Amino acid sequence: MAGTDETHEYDVVVLGAGPTGENVADRARANGLSAVIVESELVGGECSYWACMPSKAMLRPVTARADARRVPGVPRAIDEPLDAAAIFAHRDGFASHWKDDGQVQWLESAGIDLVRGHARLDGPRRVVVDGGTDRARVLTARHAVAVCTGSRAKLPGLPGLAEARPWTSREATSAGSVPPRLAVVGGGVVGVEMATAWQALGSRVTLLVRGGGLLPKMEPFAGELVEQALTEAGATVRTGASVTGVRRPEPDGPVTITLDGGEEIVADEVLFATGRAPRTDDLGLETVGLEPGSWLEVDDTCRVTAVSGDWLYACGDVNARALLTHQGKYQARITGAVIAARARGAAVQGEPWGAHAATADTAAVPQVVFTDPEVASVGLTAEAAERAGHRVRAVDYDLSSVAGAALYADGYRGRARMVVDLDREVLLGVTFVGAAVGELLHSASVAVAGEVPIDRLWHAVPAYPTVSEVWLRLLETYRG
Amino acid sequence: MAGTDETHEYDVVVLGAGPTGENVADRARANGLSAVIVESELVGGECSYWACMPSKAMLRPVTARADARRVPGVPRAIDEPLDAAAIFAHRDGFASHWKDDGQVQWLESAGIDLVRGHARLDGPRRVVVDGGTDRARVLTARHAVAVCTGSRAKLPGLPGLAEARPWTSREATSAGSVPPRLAVVGGGVVGVEMATAWQALGSRVTLLVRGGGLLPKMEPFAGELVEQALTEAGATVRTGASVTGVRRPEPDGPVTITLDGGEEIVADEVLFATGRAPRTDDLGLETVGLEPGSWLEVDDTCRVTAVSGDWLYACGDVNARALLTHQGKYQARITGAVIAARARGAAVQGEPWGAHAATADTAAVPQVVFTDPEVASVGLTAEAAERAGHRVRAVDYDLSSVAGAALYADGYRGRARMVVDLDREVLLGVTFVGAAVGELLHSASVAVAGEVPIDRLWHAVPAYPTVSEVWLRLLETYRG
Repeated sequence: MAGTDETHEYDVVVLGAGPTGENVADRARANGLSAVIVESELVGGECSYWACMPSKAMLRPVTARADARRVPGVPRAIDEPLDAAAIFAHRDGFASHWKDDGQVQWLESAGIDLVRGHARLDGPRRVVVDGGTDRARVLTARHAVAVCTGSRAKLPGLPGLAEARPWTSREATSAGSVPPRLAVVGGGVVGVEMATAWQALGSRVTLLVRGGGLLPKMEPFAGELVEQALTEAGATVRTGASVTGVRRPEPDGPVTITLDGGEEIVADEVLFATGRAPRTDDLGLETVGLEPGSWLEVDDTCRVTAVSGDWLYACGDVNARALLTHQGKYQARITGAVIAARARGAAVQGEPWGAHAATADTAAVPQVVFTDPEVASVGLTAEAAERAGHRVRAVDYDLSSVAGAALYADGYRGRARMVVDLDREVLLGVTFVGAAVGELLHSASVAVAGEVPIDRLWHAVPAYPTVSEVWLRLLETYRG
Repeated sequence: MAGTDETHEYDVVVLGAGPTGENVADRARANGLSAVIVESELVGGECSYWACMPSKAMLRPVTARADARRVPGVPRAIDEPLDAAAIFAHRDGFASHWKDDGQVQWLESAGIDLVRGHARLDGPRRVVVDGGTDRARVLTARHAVAVCTGSRAKLPGLPGLAEARPWTSREATSAGSVPPRLAVVGGGVVGVEMATAWQALGSRVTLLVRGGGLLPKMEPFAGELVEQALTEAGATVRTGASVTGVRRPEPDGPVTITLDGGEEIVADEVLFATGRAPRTDDLGLETVGLEPGSWLEVDDTCRVTAVSGDWLYACGDVNARALLTHQGKYQARITGAVIAARARGAAVQGEPWGAHAATADTAAVPQVVFTDPEVASVGLTAEAAERAGHRVRAVDYDLSSVAGAALYADGYRGRARMVVDLDREVLLGVTFVGAAVGELLHSASVAVAGEVPIDRLWHAVPAYPTVSEVWLRLLETYRG
């Protein structure tokens, strides 16, 4: 680095100003440490502009209308198509029109410095920011560097894919017109949410899934119910469909997707929702002995285990523990606190469920899929719990048999499962599928993370008649 | 009693076939005891025909439409009035057209005998049923009699009231046409729910409340937000309005309500939602030393404390612990279990939160008010907690500042409060007001009944972006 570089020292240097990075910096500041955050794109990160916020702004009208269609007395014009332009305008507002002034203002109010540019590690505790000017800026960290650079869409290595200009989650959450035909590749959360949104906005959606079903990391019935609903909404779901090629012969023409059997599918746009890759390929990881482009393995305090000296942390998607905004923020709160504790020589409370351990990352990760029906899960699936060596029983209940669900919507369809640890008589995981279960999930998160014994859950009375009464039914079913 | 009376002996005799009585009998049966249930009206009780079920069937279209109106892209015809006839037909279905065949069938399938008629105690363990025939039927209880006769609407002693044919909750939940003008007397749960329903169905509602605000047993902001919403919906809310007289001069004409200042209000119907009275006035209570018409005081196992011998129980509204269907069912499960335990000489687990103690009745009663916005609360209000001698802090948060709430509805309005026990660092109560909080409540019920420490609640991560994230905000606000 040239001698003319500006050098600034901070207690904590954070790479990446998404929700995770913001929360690490905020918790460091709240503990009296100085903090700087480096961002090469928009302050606010993927979640604010190309993920949670715009996608939920597009999906909420879909579920609100679907719910209203399922009750009597509502004017039948509710059955008419959604107004896509109105939804795009709404979505653009929730994405702050892809401007980060509000977030920058928040950083200022929190006393967090912002450096715009591309950050690379340059040995321990040292970060060089290439801001596009002649002079690099050097940031040194008295206590810690936290890598919170997140992830990007991972595209498969298909010939001609780049030339075909596929959508990733970014285009799928920011496009401003409705493609008449949309092919979606991938049956995970992004795939099913975007298939739901665009089908409702007016596209004819074809969802291409390599495996045998949707949402493969969740309980099997979740993907089954979502597949059924997508099909009824008019989408085509193709399981066991491997994409072998994509081409767009004319720049403004349609795209042709080839499946492994040779079949071709023609669409106006194609979304690849085929997983995520860590944004660690150009971070100077090699200067501290780590491999560029790798996920960063951390312990429960989010310290990068392969680097000695308690100074390098990785939070959020980059550590691969749970690629979810709320889980990144959770890790960030813990990381900010543990950096501060180590800085002042205080004891680290790293025992399970301690103040400095992100125990929920392995035991109680919640997730809501904002499809219609919604899917909400926390903790382990029955299969994952068995694989982890627990002695379990999966207790299922059909949500349509719950009075509160029948009142919520005519023809309510849904299902619930709780996974009981038979040795400890606590819950290891819960999954709900159905309308309105997104807000019901937190009851399960409290039960799982709180390790509330089943005997005590009997005293948590669900209000009648709500969907929540499924809790009583699950407990009764377990008792037998 | 005449010597020709039929006498039958059962392990358990239950008076009243509402959800509470059904559950006592069911739990007794499940524990191997024989059970009979006596009902003078419809099997299924108030809840099934004149309370929860029909009222929620009338209210769900109101909130579903209100929610859909608050998102973009939904056809604007959603703003047109609700179709009252369609809603009445739907409601009638949920009230099983006021026929109890389905419930009778359930009793049969559960092996519970049913006796139709009016039951009166005739000394310890003895019940005489007057079935309208010459011969009374006598039921003797080997182990227990459970009084589950519920409550009825309590009307004030106003001159001319009976002649004016006021509505009670029964008429308000079963009427089949919309009165152009409806006066509602009482600002409790029944009053605000029925004011919300009928205003949305097309009545011009005037809500007359003696006190200073609505929902006086809940946190003050609950009533304030509901009052604001009712007013915006077009209803008139009059607080500090004491009704001194009611008259309906012409049988088919309007009703005139006089207030204590002399002012007169004219309406087509008037609903009195002015509290409940126990249905214990004609139960033969005097034959076991109890006062007819009184609420029946019970211990945590629901045993009537004033009667010796462990044979008389009272569950549900009659014991005045918590006049809510779900709480009656909770008591019933516990009562059925404790009757069985005592019958077989097993130990009674009556310690707080034990299997035979209805501890939630005092510590964790949940309630959802199905207005728009919904009100959901569990446990103690801040005021009640202080009155009970706890050292507490009330932590408030404005729900409109939660991203998931803003996404749920444009202009979302709501508020949350958690009441922290500062000595034990657990929650004593939680109240949410806002759209979709009805299903969020159970998270608070698990936290309160589970006595989950605040330190652990930090590990129960709310999914982003849901309304549930208010939990994170509350915890952050508490931490300061």
